[in-house]
Amino acid sequence: MSETTTPEFQKLYDSMSTFVHTCMSGHDPSHNPPHVHRVVNLAMRILSAEQSLHPETSHSAAVVKLAALLHDIGDRKYISNIPSTDSDGPLDPKTMVEHALLQQGADAALASKVQTIVSHVSYSTECKDPAVVRELIDGGFGELAIVQDADRLDAIGAVGIGRCFVFLGAQGKKFAGENGWVMGNAIEHFGDKLEKLEGMMKTETGRRMARERTERITAFKGWWEEEMQDAA
Amino acid sequence: MSETTTPEFQKLYDSMSTFVHTCMSGHDPSHNPPHVHRVVNLAMRILSAEQSLHPETSHSAAVVKLAALLHDIGDRKYISNIPSTDSDGPLDPKTMVEHALLQQGADAALASKVQTIVSHVSYSTECKDPAVVRELIDGGFGELAIVQDADRLDAIGAVGIGRCFVFLGAQGKKFAGENGWVMGNAIEHFGDKLEKLEGMMKTETGRRMARERTERITAFKGWWEEEMQDAA
Repeated sequence: MSETTTPEFQKLYDSMSTFVHTCMSGHDPSHNPPHVHRVVNLAMRILSAEQSLHPETSHSAAVVKLAALLHDIGDRKYISNIPSTDSDGPLDPKTMVEHALLQQGADAALASKVQTIVSHVSYSTECKDPAVVRELIDGGFGELAIVQDADRLDAIGAVGIGRCFVFLGAQGKKFAGENGWVMGNAIEHFGDKLEKLEGMMKTETGRRMARERTERITAFKGWWEEEMQDAA
Repeated sequence: MSETTTPEFQKLYDSMSTFVHTCMSGHDPSHNPPHVHRVVNLAMRILSAEQSLHPETSHSAAVVKLAALLHDIGDRKYISNIPSTDSDGPLDPKTMVEHALLQQGADAALASKVQTIVSHVSYSTECKDPAVVRELIDGGFGELAIVQDADRLDAIGAVGIGRCFVFLGAQGKKFAGENGWVMGNAIEHFGDKLEKLEGMMKTETGRRMARERTERITAFKGWWEEEMQDAA
């Protein structure tokens, strides 16, 4: 991973890290800079383990690290009312990451690759058209698999449970669901999405790390049901 | 518990339940009407178990049920800027419950007893002066022990974990703590308060039910630490 230890990369990474803090430090704790830094660290851990398991494949550590850092920039859950005149400009969610990278002197190919990965990390985007993600991963964007797995690991286990409830509290009635703004919405989300993530992991390392975290969600759901029964 | 099945009591309970919905339906899901109804059901379960264990003690089921229903009315976390002119009026947090009960035709002694219990349920009030709570419980307000235990059961276990994170998300930067608005604040709260609740349970039944829920909090903290380590 020597490409991520050069002074040039470090400078670029630091300035993008500042950009992430500027964009996200006001977000609720489910999608704040500490979430991003956990995803970066998980991605680098997966990359390293995958390189040992499959020395024949080559991934760019710089792409993994930058795409993990920037993976939530332009997230529609946190961006509202982008003026239409800004479309394709620095505030267009589809090109924000590329614009910011180029502005900080990143190579055009690197900026474009990181943007493509960031644009395809999302679970809901993948559910709409899983083939697109599969084609990217098989066609030169293998780093996407690693960043997706890292982001999804942070959505399960105890941390995922905590993030899910924090998001529910922070979003208020916006995502209230048909039963209103109630805690059961988070529990439903465990079954609707979080317990499925293990099966969507793309790397061996991600899948292995997801197993225990998924069991934690299932155990937590069981506790929840028992306690609801006690209070019924 | 026949006193809670009379038509008069049912009418009073229904109108107080409507009052609770009016006051609390806008609250975040950590302190909303479903929380209140869980506490009512837990309190009635504890009361019934305690009556079997200790047939010699007599508690009023009507007092337990109404105090559990009204226990979060006037909670300072959700009431701000009560005008000082309303002090001792219907909006004074210290007398709101009694006012509302009297308005719905409750007996003055019942209204006063329920108000006293509601005013002493809180953990932080008890921490400031534990002797006051002890004296009330020993001096004719034994129902306070049951309502406190029920409320504290809903603060631990999976439900308590969920409520704690929802509250963190919903309160925003208001209770941000010295490290800012971060998920670690909830985890700190587990150790600072939630793991201590088992030792503060007043009834045998409450203590027994608290044991497993406290173990769940401790297990969850262990998972959390492991996952933070993986992402460090």
